[in-house]
Amino acid sequence: MSQPGQAAPAVPLRVAPAALQQFIATLFERAGMSAAHATTVADALVWANLRGVDTHGVARVPRYLEFVETGIINPRPDLRAVSDSPAVQVLEADRAAGAIAMSQAGETAIAKARFAGIGLVLVRGTTHTGSLGYYTESIARRGLTALALTASTPNMAYHGARAAGVSTAPISIAIPGAGSAQTDDPIVLDMAAGIVSLGRLVQAKRLKETLAPGLALDAAGNPTTNAQTAHIPLPLGGAKGSGLALMIEMLTSLAVGNPLIATFFSDATGAKRHRQNALVLAIDVFRFCPEDVFRRDVALTVAALKALPPDPAAGGILMPGERGYSEARRRRQDGIPLPGGIAAELAGAAAKYGLALPWAP
Amino acid sequence: MSQPGQAAPAVPLRVAPAALQQFIATLFERAGMSAAHATTVADALVWANLRGVDTHGVARVPRYLEFVETGIINPRPDLRAVSDSPAVQVLEADRAAGAIAMSQAGETAIAKARFAGIGLVLVRGTTHTGSLGYYTESIARRGLTALALTASTPNMAYHGARAAGVSTAPISIAIPGAGSAQTDDPIVLDMAAGIVSLGRLVQAKRLKETLAPGLALDAAGNPTTNAQTAHIPLPLGGAKGSGLALMIEMLTSLAVGNPLIATFFSDATGAKRHRQNALVLAIDVFRFCPEDVFRRDVALTVAALKALPPDPAAGGILMPGERGYSEARRRRQDGIPLPGGIAAELAGAAAKYGLALPWAP
Repeated sequence: MSQPGQAAPAVPLRVAPAALQQFIATLFERAGMSAAHATTVADALVWANLRGVDTHGVARVPRYLEFVETGIINPRPDLRAVSDSPAVQVLEADRAAGAIAMSQAGETAIAKARFAGIGLVLVRGTTHTGSLGYYTESIARRGLTALALTASTPNMAYHGARAAGVSTAPISIAIPGAGSAQTDDPIVLDMAAGIVSLGRLVQAKRLKETLAPGLALDAAGNPTTNAQTAHIPLPLGGAKGSGLALMIEMLTSLAVGNPLIATFFSDATGAKRHRQNALVLAIDVFRFCPEDVFRRDVALTVAALKALPPDPAAGGILMPGERGYSEARRRRQDGIPLPGGIAAELAGAAAKYGLALPWAP
Repeated sequence: MSQPGQAAPAVPLRVAPAALQQFIATLFERAGMSAAHATTVADALVWANLRGVDTHGVARVPRYLEFVETGIINPRPDLRAVSDSPAVQVLEADRAAGAIAMSQAGETAIAKARFAGIGLVLVRGTTHTGSLGYYTESIARRGLTALALTASTPNMAYHGARAAGVSTAPISIAIPGAGSAQTDDPIVLDMAAGIVSLGRLVQAKRLKETLAPGLALDAAGNPTTNAQTAHIPLPLGGAKGSGLALMIEMLTSLAVGNPLIATFFSDATGAKRHRQNALVLAIDVFRFCPEDVFRRDVALTVAALKALPPDPAAGGILMPGERGYSEARRRRQDGIPLPGGIAAELAGAAAKYGLALPWAP
């Protein structure tokens, strides 16, 4: 905490995770969400910060608040099943914040998987779902394997085209880890189908970097290495990444009758308005493989990979999600770093909603 | 057909698909499979040839026959459900040829999806599953969306290591197409998690090409651009591709208690023997979205993408599987090209099993 007359601190502001989460939750409650919903949305954002995925953390709060103010996010959504089968539910999210719809979808997927062996929830008409690992990790901690996919409006090039045609299509898969049920840290893959993330393009722009060729197009669709004009990520592996993104749109948006790509390029009212569709799948894996055998095999598989000869150019042989767990341990202790720009935006929101800041101004 | 005294034809041998399939089926029947199983395996291989995926076509026949002769493939498998839930079955494949186990898994997944909305079959202990699009396309033609994944013994580098640690992990997703139920051509993504396929490495070696950097390691684990020594494909997008491959091993092999990676690197007897685990998932999508709405939205989505400004460096804006359908139309008419080496191997097998060739020698 700086004293009057002291120079601004060289180290970035760091905020304790619990205090940050409470602050963000109160902001969303003041903006109109129920206390329970506000807590869930704040928890999902701070989870991303803890794991070092700051692009999907509290940096999103000003935009979420704007979404609430402009009606894109419905702060009091009426989430309801519009179709129900023994193992599948279509959940109409009624423009809920993504974390609300996806968390509820995860609970339903688990319940259905406990009955049928597998449970699928197709989420219709939600908003920014954020880090999908938040939902899959939570399912894997309960002892099930999990998959989550999200489709959103086009922001990534479709292979063969010089324009955004599909979304970066986040994909997360999680499985129960090698620990005991008590000490379990699931293995969590959390990736997207782009060769580079939108967040990375923003970062390169801020740091005035030159991009490697083959990563991005500018807004006009021309290939560029200039981070100042780079706008559209190219798909991972060309046709593979954009094909995967297209199939995710078809598995989610088209399955619930809420096409995003087709509508985006149409003349329909609100064609370009932010919205997402998604799915959450849970498999009751310990019904098919005894828990002790599964966890032992996870441990053996991880050990086998870690014993391979390392690539000296890489930073170690890591499991999916491992870097995030390490970062979370550090940040739980040291606090979550908030760059000045983001802290100022959050301070603005706090002033607007009459809230004290959890850090010294 | 060449006349005595004529020079060898400059054009490669081409064989009518139906004749080629009948020939291959008879070979497998003579090798010990039932007529029904032999027909299915031959159909899956010729399907790949028709679509231009010659690395997964009849070029595999000599190896499959060797697998039967050495007991790796069981020609008379006892396929049986070892676990059954309303929406999930674990199918013990008893070392069946992959096409047998995966086709049966597809039928069961469809039946479970018709009951529960979604059906999953985990396939334990099968052999080379070949082109996964064969199974997913077949499910999508029946009006369901489909996903298939296969795990096999390590043949691709794990990110951070300089050795094969995971498999190239084929992934296929298919959805019913925009046509009517009668004229439907599903949209079929059929990809793998490697930045380059093993088949492509073999081709580059044969054509004495130089590889681009970043595609492969040699057998000792060193990065190489020399196609003569390239041996281990690198994963697509580094940690993304190898992470996806690892999660596929965990979703399939570990879920059925038959780990491939952990066993491969152990001292167990037969640790390196060829075997695969897989899964087939079907979703009864028209239960959630009326068929006419779904097919219309597929058409609109495809039309929107095809109307994007094209990349002049690419060969058009294609949907997943579109190139394969075009090639199949050509090859149904012109026949399937058989390179001399493969024709000679098949002729050797025909002589061994006392079969006439479906082409002039």
